[in-house]
Amino acid sequence: MKKIFVTGGAGFIGSNLCGFLLDKGHEVTAYDSLLLGRREFFKDFEENPRFRFVEADLLDREALSGEIKGHDLVFHMAANSDISRGAKHTDVDLKLGTIATYNVLETMRGGGVGEIVFASTSAVYGDELRVVPTPEDYGPLFPISFYGASKLACEALISAFCHNYGIRAWIFRFANIIGRNGTHGAAFDFVERLKKDPSVLRVLGDGRQAKPYLHVSDCIEGMWFGYERAVEHLNYFNLSVEGATSVRVIAETAIRESGLTGTRIEYTGGERGWAGDVPQVRLDGGKLAGLGWTASRSSDEAVKLGVKELVEQSATNWRTK
Amino acid sequence: MKKIFVTGGAGFIGSNLCGFLLDKGHEVTAYDSLLLGRREFFKDFEENPRFRFVEADLLDREALSGEIKGHDLVFHMAANSDISRGAKHTDVDLKLGTIATYNVLETMRGGGVGEIVFASTSAVYGDELRVVPTPEDYGPLFPISFYGASKLACEALISAFCHNYGIRAWIFRFANIIGRNGTHGAAFDFVERLKKDPSVLRVLGDGRQAKPYLHVSDCIEGMWFGYERAVEHLNYFNLSVEGATSVRVIAETAIRESGLTGTRIEYTGGERGWAGDVPQVRLDGGKLAGLGWTASRSSDEAVKLGVKELVEQSATNWRTK
Repeated sequence: MKKIFVTGGAGFIGSNLCGFLLDKGHEVTAYDSLLLGRREFFKDFEENPRFRFVEADLLDREALSGEIKGHDLVFHMAANSDISRGAKHTDVDLKLGTIATYNVLETMRGGGVGEIVFASTSAVYGDELRVVPTPEDYGPLFPISFYGASKLACEALISAFCHNYGIRAWIFRFANIIGRNGTHGAAFDFVERLKKDPSVLRVLGDGRQAKPYLHVSDCIEGMWFGYERAVEHLNYFNLSVEGATSVRVIAETAIRESGLTGTRIEYTGGERGWAGDVPQVRLDGGKLAGLGWTASRSSDEAVKLGVKELVEQSATNWRTK
Repeated sequence: MKKIFVTGGAGFIGSNLCGFLLDKGHEVTAYDSLLLGRREFFKDFEENPRFRFVEADLLDREALSGEIKGHDLVFHMAANSDISRGAKHTDVDLKLGTIATYNVLETMRGGGVGEIVFASTSAVYGDELRVVPTPEDYGPLFPISFYGASKLACEALISAFCHNYGIRAWIFRFANIIGRNGTHGAAFDFVERLKKDPSVLRVLGDGRQAKPYLHVSDCIEGMWFGYERAVEHLNYFNLSVEGATSVRVIAETAIRESGLTGTRIEYTGGERGWAGDVPQVRLDGGKLAGLGWTASRSSDEAVKLGVKELVEQSATNWRTK
């Protein structure tokens, strides 16, 4: 049994991860400001005596320092998950991403916590890539979103802490992740908007943007697999799936899974959904596959299941406030 | 004539750059906190009516915002130039590098300043490189010093600002730079320490660490050449020289140029000078060479001239305080 600290533990991936780690028999501390996360996501395990929730901010280094020490391993999942917001408020990712991650690493060092698993992103690769699907050793790295820029800054900080202070790290560059407890992203938006207006669904871009979608359960299995098997001091992997799913397919799936027919889809046009959006992403998952892990669901299957879960969860109405 | 804003304008490269830009006929504002820079470096041009000095901190965003607007171009040279300090005080590079650079970019955006030339570093490439000499498109990027981590974070921020707000950028990844107005680095340390004790020179590592040295005049010529010729929205270059000079040669040069004989060199041993030091660096300068620029001096020639200048400057005693 390990003592595991999950930042962003009340968020989308973090909350699913807490359940997974508790099922594996570990002791789990979820640390979350509830700025983006939700207490309702703990409902399946909040009574578990091996689970503890701390409502606090990663920018409160004193609180973090007191809470993080004594843990064996940190899953650092917290971030500003609303990528398009970063283009309007350029300091959001700097604070919730870069500075928050610095605080995690610095308090790990101070508290003698030796291992970190980090949720990075395919957005570190930027746009107009020469190699597709893109492998982990791709360069140069010029992210076009503030989110991607911040994640790259975090990776670099992790690398420096690893080298200077002996911390071990597992960096996973995520594809798009989909599934229950989702709080953002195209599928989530579509499901919520269809509830408000089933007659028309407005979609940013031309619908042809396509990215690999990984179901959140595969995301978590993949991280745990990589953490257990990868033996370098600093390990880094794409965490993805072959192929990709277009925005058009996600929109159509959201309509179908919502039980609607006759909904009109309106595309705003243009190849990019928003400034900083990378319209075409394909990730080479060969490095993690080489250790023996591949996703159990294809991108289209992950979208189908994920959208279904989001529709079901939306129907319980917990989300309205 | 352009209105040019030089951050770190009182520092080593910044002060040399101010003189160069004034000679070219431009209007120059040097912005510097004098934390690492020195007012004495302005002595050759402080009376020039096209020159203005602002003593202020990049972390003071209000001051920066008021000063930066109205300029055509920013040379962002300010940074914590003491790389080894970052390993002891892990937040120095975060503040003086990453957050300061964010402030520069955000105030450029607010003030309508459209162009930035950025002093990056070969340290972004990290250690144990698969490709030597290392080209600009190398990946992955896992810097081992906090300095390198911060510079990579800055590059990523520049990339995001370029993409989202139309700022144009020229990123130069510097080799080691040497010459007059030096304030740090092996050659500077050796010259200063030989003044205090000419009998023995203590050298970190085994003396075999070797890096390419570029004379500061070549560094500035190279940046200006790249700025004038490179036409991409986001341009990035190694700014280097073929070959490399070992710490042993620098130590011997410092002794000889100081007019000493019989000084004993004591190596502390080990392949690394300090945690975060990359012991062997070779940079591929082919990309800038392809536009037509190569350094006028070899690495060894740059070291010889640079050490000579540091010895002469040290003899004037301005540096003692």
